Amino acid sequence: MEDGIVKLINQPLLPHKFEIYDCKDYKITAEAIRDMVVRGAGAIGATAGYAMAQAFLAGEDVGKAAEYIKSMRPTAQNLFYAVDKVLKAKDKEEAVKVAQEIADEDADFCERIGEHGENLIQDGFKILTHCNAGWLAFVDWGSALSPVYKAKRNGKNVFVFADETRPRCQGARLTAFELAQEGVPHAVIADNAAGYYMKKKEVDFVIVGSDRIAANGDVANKIGTYEKAVLAKENGIPFYVAAPTTTIDFECESGDKIPIEERDEGEVLCMFGKDNCGKVSKIRIAPEESKAKNPAFDVTPAKYIAGIITEKGIFKPEEIKDIKNS
Amino acid sequence: MEDGIVKLINQPLLPHKFEIYDCKDYKITAEAIRDMVVRGAGAIGATAGYAMAQAFLAGEDVGKAAEYIKSMRPTAQNLFYAVDKVLKAKDKEEAVKVAQEIADEDADFCERIGEHGENLIQDGFKILTHCNAGWLAFVDWGSALSPVYKAKRNGKNVFVFADETRPRCQGARLTAFELAQEGVPHAVIADNAAGYYMKKKEVDFVIVGSDRIAANGDVANKIGTYEKAVLAKENGIPFYVAAPTTTIDFECESGDKIPIEERDEGEVLCMFGKDNCGKVSKIRIAPEESKAKNPAFDVTPAKYIAGIITEKGIFKPEEIKDIKNS
Repeated sequence: MEDGIVKLINQPLLPHKFEIYDCKDYKITAEAIRDMVVRGAGAIGATAGYAMAQAFLAGEDVGKAAEYIKSMRPTAQNLFYAVDKVLKAKDKEEAVKVAQEIADEDADFCERIGEHGENLIQDGFKILTHCNAGWLAFVDWGSALSPVYKAKRNGKNVFVFADETRPRCQGARLTAFELAQEGVPHAVIADNAAGYYMKKKEVDFVIVGSDRIAANGDVANKIGTYEKAVLAKENGIPFYVAAPTTTIDFECESGDKIPIEERDEGEVLCMFGKDNCGKVSKIRIAPEESKAKNPAFDVTPAKYIAGIITEKGIFKPEEIKDIKNS
Repeated sequence: MEDGIVKLINQPLLPHKFEIYDCKDYKITAEAIRDMVVRGAGAIGATAGYAMAQAFLAGEDVGKAAEYIKSMRPTAQNLFYAVDKVLKAKDKEEAVKVAQEIADEDADFCERIGEHGENLIQDGFKILTHCNAGWLAFVDWGSALSPVYKAKRNGKNVFVFADETRPRCQGARLTAFELAQEGVPHAVIADNAAGYYMKKKEVDFVIVGSDRIAANGDVANKIGTYEKAVLAKENGIPFYVAAPTTTIDFECESGDKIPIEERDEGEVLCMFGKDNCGKVSKIRIAPEESKAKNPAFDVTPAKYIAGIITEKGIFKPEEIKDIKNS
């Protein structure tokens, strides 16, 4: 936030165009969350905190603003965490300070996730990830990709299979963009090919982020995560989740209780990309008569998860509920 | 084939444009197989048979023609079956007759697959399918979709989840097109969402086609089929394969021996669809710096398969080897 304007990387244009999207008031910032100009657990949280600070600065009804911002996306726990934290501020100065702290804390937590998670990555590992949980999805470093970046910077040879992650292709667009920037060797694969490489024993390690973790260790994340977790278990490959503890919803007993966002069917029926003229444009894939269903997240039961990597260390899913008081 | 010209539906243009692609000699017909103007087990087989007939009609070296046609795609068993069958013809009249018989037999076998398979489909079933194994993939009826069409015509209410099937989206483009034409209620889903609906118990039955079946009952089919099979087993949902016996490779002991075609990475990094001007055009999804890997098929081990539906009836995978002599 600069001079009361929240500045976001306009992520739907990536990797084809890098553009800053200016949000001049909390409603525009909130709608940028809804429309996925910004996405990713930590980035949504930090943005929501700043949206609340904007509401304080403008002298708005901050309770109403909080409700509005929280209504933008139903699954992401960091959204609720950040809004509720800034809402408790006694004045606008404190609101700005708390929003800034949430953003700084996010970057700090993610770096520590990288340090803990790197211990699990051996030299030569081939790593599968789904969706994008790197620095674009947080304030810096990322969750799932942070250990990969730490491993790379510490001289380990790693190779990443990036699931393209339909329908919005955050893997092909954003994870591939980050990996290219970081100089990490990688290949984009169709989501359908992940099982093929796991069965061929070409994947040593699976790591994903999370949008909400229930107290019993069940994990909501991008649609398709559950498929990868089941396939990893079937093939004896460790499946890890990386997330700051701000993603844990201690009030939520189990994954069944996590609301799953159903997004517009156009995301499945169509696709965005760079056309021949270099412009980001939309094409239609399916027949005009066909409908689609588009759940944005799924829940991976704790039994498929080898561990959850947080800024406080690596926990078994069943230990999650005890973090609160630790 | 009309007047020595093989006429194919130009499938990459579907569902946006219906166009007939004329192949005036066997090489053009063969290259149409390679470039996937025509695709699908039975349709490839019938087309390859006609390509051989073209070689006979033109007085070509038919042994050389057979090698050329067989080199177009490595996985599809029906390609080898049809080429070898026409190659045995003693003259051009017999070659044309055998090619025509292969095509007629394919349509007949597929209708019988529909009759056998329909017995497995109860009124109200929600059915998941992957890729396209309907009438576009064969001469008529299809394999996996034939039982669905029989059920629909016999008054059963069915609903189909069509996996979009990246990278070439045969589900979103071709299966959805067929289902719309047949009036079968359906929804296109991202390949990532199949596990979500299985876990929610919204899928009663999974049915897919096959490109090659090994003697031990292992099944090669479109990339991602293995993922669906593992998820179906994990969720207690019956997983069936439908294919004419011409897809069985009795010489191939197990799925490990089936060669898997690796196709161009551009299929993953880019995507085709209808643009704003109604033209079928290509967009780029991933960064220019990123590479992709693109295996076109995977192998589903027999242990995940409830049954294989053929024109001769429904068999357990372990019974496949005995069909030859029955």
